[in-house]
Amino acid sequence: MDSSPSAPRVTLLAGGVGGARLAHGLALALPDGGAEHLRIVGNVGDDTERHGLLVSPDLDTVMYTLAGLNDEQRGWGLTGETYGVLDQLARLGEDTWFTLGDKDLATHVVRTAALRDGEPLSAVTARLCAALGVHATLLPVTDDRLRTLVDTPAGRVAFQEYFVRRQHADAVLGLTFDGADTARPAPGVLAAVRDTEVLVVAPSNPFLSVEPLLAVPGVRDALRATSARRVAVSPIVGGRALKGPAAQVLETLGHEVSALGVARLYTGLVDVMCVDEADAALADPIRDLGLDVVVTDTIMGGPAGRERLARELLTAVGPAPR
Amino acid sequence: MDSSPSAPRVTLLAGGVGGARLAHGLALALPDGGAEHLRIVGNVGDDTERHGLLVSPDLDTVMYTLAGLNDEQRGWGLTGETYGVLDQLARLGEDTWFTLGDKDLATHVVRTAALRDGEPLSAVTARLCAALGVHATLLPVTDDRLRTLVDTPAGRVAFQEYFVRRQHADAVLGLTFDGADTARPAPGVLAAVRDTEVLVVAPSNPFLSVEPLLAVPGVRDALRATSARRVAVSPIVGGRALKGPAAQVLETLGHEVSALGVARLYTGLVDVMCVDEADAALADPIRDLGLDVVVTDTIMGGPAGRERLARELLTAVGPAPR
Repeated sequence: MDSSPSAPRVTLLAGGVGGARLAHGLALALPDGGAEHLRIVGNVGDDTERHGLLVSPDLDTVMYTLAGLNDEQRGWGLTGETYGVLDQLARLGEDTWFTLGDKDLATHVVRTAALRDGEPLSAVTARLCAALGVHATLLPVTDDRLRTLVDTPAGRVAFQEYFVRRQHADAVLGLTFDGADTARPAPGVLAAVRDTEVLVVAPSNPFLSVEPLLAVPGVRDALRATSARRVAVSPIVGGRALKGPAAQVLETLGHEVSALGVARLYTGLVDVMCVDEADAALADPIRDLGLDVVVTDTIMGGPAGRERLARELLTAVGPAPR
Repeated sequence: MDSSPSAPRVTLLAGGVGGARLAHGLALALPDGGAEHLRIVGNVGDDTERHGLLVSPDLDTVMYTLAGLNDEQRGWGLTGETYGVLDQLARLGEDTWFTLGDKDLATHVVRTAALRDGEPLSAVTARLCAALGVHATLLPVTDDRLRTLVDTPAGRVAFQEYFVRRQHADAVLGLTFDGADTARPAPGVLAAVRDTEVLVVAPSNPFLSVEPLLAVPGVRDALRATSARRVAVSPIVGGRALKGPAAQVLETLGHEVSALGVARLYTGLVDVMCVDEADAALADPIRDLGLDVVVTDTIMGGPAGRERLARELLTAVGPAPR
């Protein structure tokens, strides 16, 4: 498919690690790293300010992974990272529970300076991606401020407070996407959803990663209305999340912790549900929801596994209009 | 003198390296690192923004030197420094002619965040000094914006553009201390100059380091009016600057490049001129200006040499009122 002139135009709705891995697979499966074919709409609900610097963890995980710089062991951050700044910040009395490596920090320094100079997040994201040799187009869902707040038994906390500082140990009782009501889709976002041939919802957390994308006015409607063939990959495999708190979040919010539970969330938004072979038995109940089902190995390890899954998705949903 | 209850209260007007070394000597010569006895009024005219971060090179050189963290080989920056952020900034397309180490950058990150949160420069400076174990009081001359601009044959440039990027190779045709007219002395600055027993002008560049201190309204008058015994150490030894462009600047601005030339600049502002043994022959011409003269070895190498010079200055000018 790499050099096929008939490669489809693909848009991926992505959160962090799962989104980054599938983005990488798609970039490998599409011509020229997805330069002309791949747009990724990225989550900004988990953005945070640390030490006065704006950190966009999901955008950066996608960007670093596409650049081949991601630390595959940890799933986030950069390979060969050092911590000179963070160690000194601790010495200066700063609270350093949010780990920032030196290379990663350079991203945040550039982004923060750009935003303070009035450059939109989408523009500086494009600039950073270009500098790192990323060919696909990474679009923050909005240039406006949007912050996921998490209601827990301990009260309402900012997303990274929940996710990193408290290590997502709290039950998630509710979510608020602060700023979403008035956020405007960043330039190119609605077009990326509407004007594409394949729309993929990454195996990201439906509530913590995908919902803040859909919460931006216009995005959910664009997803409903697009003529693209739409497929979602379940982040739940065998009743468990591959990574992160997706299982707990589904459970505490009253949903079945399974690919079927995820499929119910996406009914009306996608045409095809991609589930792991471990969940083959759920194919029929999912079909009963009116969705097509693709059953395959959804576990993406290294680049080869990512590319394989991407190719299977593209083959299964095809470039044909629904 | 270390434990003497009669140790004088000392205020040092300081620029970068020369000021930092004499500050260190005074901190060693005074009880408890100068905790109760030493105030340093630091230059902010060479402050700059790099990558959106406020850098205060002179304040930091003093702070790092007092903390024992200064890189003695280079004269600036921190020992054991790494450059993870800077290398990545270059990769991201940033212009990295101004070298920022990772540890150093932590200082700028904290300072920038504090200033953006409305904390005055003097307050965050005190906080940083405390975190690094600096006992003496380091006061930026002003919390307001003050920037030294340098007129060169190539036009007017910002100080670090002249000093670092163009490696102070240009003739200095004139200086502007942008913002000085309306700058207010930081809290404690005028009291440090007025209400002290010994006032030392460091062997810093008279035009690039000391003049921006005096340009802040009230500081020059306080120096003229203080009852402290005032001594300046010549940064020119044997007709040459120990470090930096002091000689060239004196020359292009029409002054004699010698300790006598420096003494002429400080006439009316100090009581005593301290010159190096190499300039013993200038003692009489300097006395003819109405100044007392101390002749000693003014070359400060390591801590021992700094402490020796500090002790000699304190002995020579004494705690007695003039």
